[in-house]
Amino acid sequence: MKVAISIGDLNGVGIEIAIKSHEEIKKYVRPIYCINKTMLNKAAKLLNYKIPHDFEIEEVKGDFEIKPGIVDAKSGEYSFNSFLKAIELAKTNKVDAITTLPINKEAWNKAGIKYKGHTEVLRDIFKKDAIMMLGCEKLYVALFTEHIPLKEIFKKIKKDNLVKFFLDFYNSTHFEKIGVLGLNPHAGDGGVLGDEEINEIIPAIKEANNILKKEVFYGPLVPDTAFSKKKGNFIAMYHDQGLAPLKALYFDESINVSLNLPILRTSVDHGTAFDIAYKKIAKNKSYINAIKYIKT
Amino acid sequence: MKVAISIGDLNGVGIEIAIKSHEEIKKYVRPIYCINKTMLNKAAKLLNYKIPHDFEIEEVKGDFEIKPGIVDAKSGEYSFNSFLKAIELAKTNKVDAITTLPINKEAWNKAGIKYKGHTEVLRDIFKKDAIMMLGCEKLYVALFTEHIPLKEIFKKIKKDNLVKFFLDFYNSTHFEKIGVLGLNPHAGDGGVLGDEEINEIIPAIKEANNILKKEVFYGPLVPDTAFSKKKGNFIAMYHDQGLAPLKALYFDESINVSLNLPILRTSVDHGTAFDIAYKKIAKNKSYINAIKYIKT
Repeated sequence: MKVAISIGDLNGVGIEIAIKSHEEIKKYVRPIYCINKTMLNKAAKLLNYKIPHDFEIEEVKGDFEIKPGIVDAKSGEYSFNSFLKAIELAKTNKVDAITTLPINKEAWNKAGIKYKGHTEVLRDIFKKDAIMMLGCEKLYVALFTEHIPLKEIFKKIKKDNLVKFFLDFYNSTHFEKIGVLGLNPHAGDGGVLGDEEINEIIPAIKEANNILKKEVFYGPLVPDTAFSKKKGNFIAMYHDQGLAPLKALYFDESINVSLNLPILRTSVDHGTAFDIAYKKIAKNKSYINAIKYIKT
Repeated sequence: MKVAISIGDLNGVGIEIAIKSHEEIKKYVRPIYCINKTMLNKAAKLLNYKIPHDFEIEEVKGDFEIKPGIVDAKSGEYSFNSFLKAIELAKTNKVDAITTLPINKEAWNKAGIKYKGHTEVLRDIFKKDAIMMLGCEKLYVALFTEHIPLKEIFKKIKKDNLVKFFLDFYNSTHFEKIGVLGLNPHAGDGGVLGDEEINEIIPAIKEANNILKKEVFYGPLVPDTAFSKKKGNFIAMYHDQGLAPLKALYFDESINVSLNLPILRTSVDHGTAFDIAYKKIAKNKSYINAIKYIKT
């Protein structure tokens, strides 16, 4: 299985993680790194790393000074081009999936790139509602709403949209048991603490199960106790409902997966970590898990 | 130190936990159980437990059949009266604090008791804004809003109320470092994902620190990563923001503390567990911690 590695912001921890994890990920996939020789040599020199002899690259043009830990337009632009190259390889079936190393939003902004992150680019290119799923083997959480203010969330909790999301998520993962979280404390407590469960979420669970002709979706689960078993596959109604317990439990090992797209993309669940760039102390557990997810 | 134990719903796990933990909690406090001989004998017989010779009781009238796992008006009423007795002992300084075992809301309802839970009773009796704090030694979370629908939360996030809450919480705990969570994903991301952080929470943190003349409060913290170190003292803006990560990490050992009242009340952080009542398998870690909190 071939995987295109989008190299991330070269002023951050991505390239260090890529080089030092190469031997291990080779066991699972055949990685193709979206970078050129010039930039790879510069990074390896700064890290005092030897470049593995079988480090297969796919040319991404560019030549600039690497400045560890600095927000820089050139480095931002390069990370964007590396990502575009990885997408191109996936679209033309030269690879089976892509794994992305972290980019820096501000650097993209400085480079005049209008997107806020990887997922937004994928949505725009494929004109599809990508589903954001985060987690690790023990616990996966898909987010029904993502980056919106808390006060806007309840407006989005509508039966038809929920049913569509539920089915898209099932079709992307084939998880046979998926817990759906309630929106309100105690999942509304029978309507006393909010009525979205009764009016929207419960009917959506029923309809989705009816369409699939099996009981895949269950809930609505009481949000504050749903994670106490530390495992399962869940749909969260909003960003912090799913991610706060996930990151409390599995911060280092979690990955980010973009589902419901023509291509599969996995990603580390951390940022460029500029404060520790090129110090050779970055953890690679999330990266290894992002690669392993593709194999499964 | 003397502690009144409110015995909880006798059809649930409370009395089992009380009897089997007596030897251990005696090391920390002098417990006074709010129950009468008749009911204690009935429960002990059902459990096949010997009543410890130094099991000090404070008479709460009543005589009815214990029905393990059943929602029952008589048992509901008795648990309410046991709680009232414990409060009375605390108000009259016959004990230093109270610890409550779980009651059943439905049983209270059946008995015509209008309150939804312990905290509501305490607020009504003392006419004070009790602060609900949950957690264990590693991680405590105080809830700025509690049992309200998600869509109502943002309306409550007002600077003056936050400042009052922050100071009350500090005065009740004397925690020297208290992390304040943001309301929105990424704590609003500079206003892009909601403005309550900029308009209300940040000014409240500044004002509270100014009043205290020291930097006790810090934040607003990004809610989904705040708990990844698995420790700290936090103020959550809403119920599930604080309790989902807390229960993901420390379900069995967490306790519930009512602060900002003339008396100190601690409680187990679980329910009556009717499904395992009188099966002698209930865990007592939360109860032990609730007792230990009083000692500290």
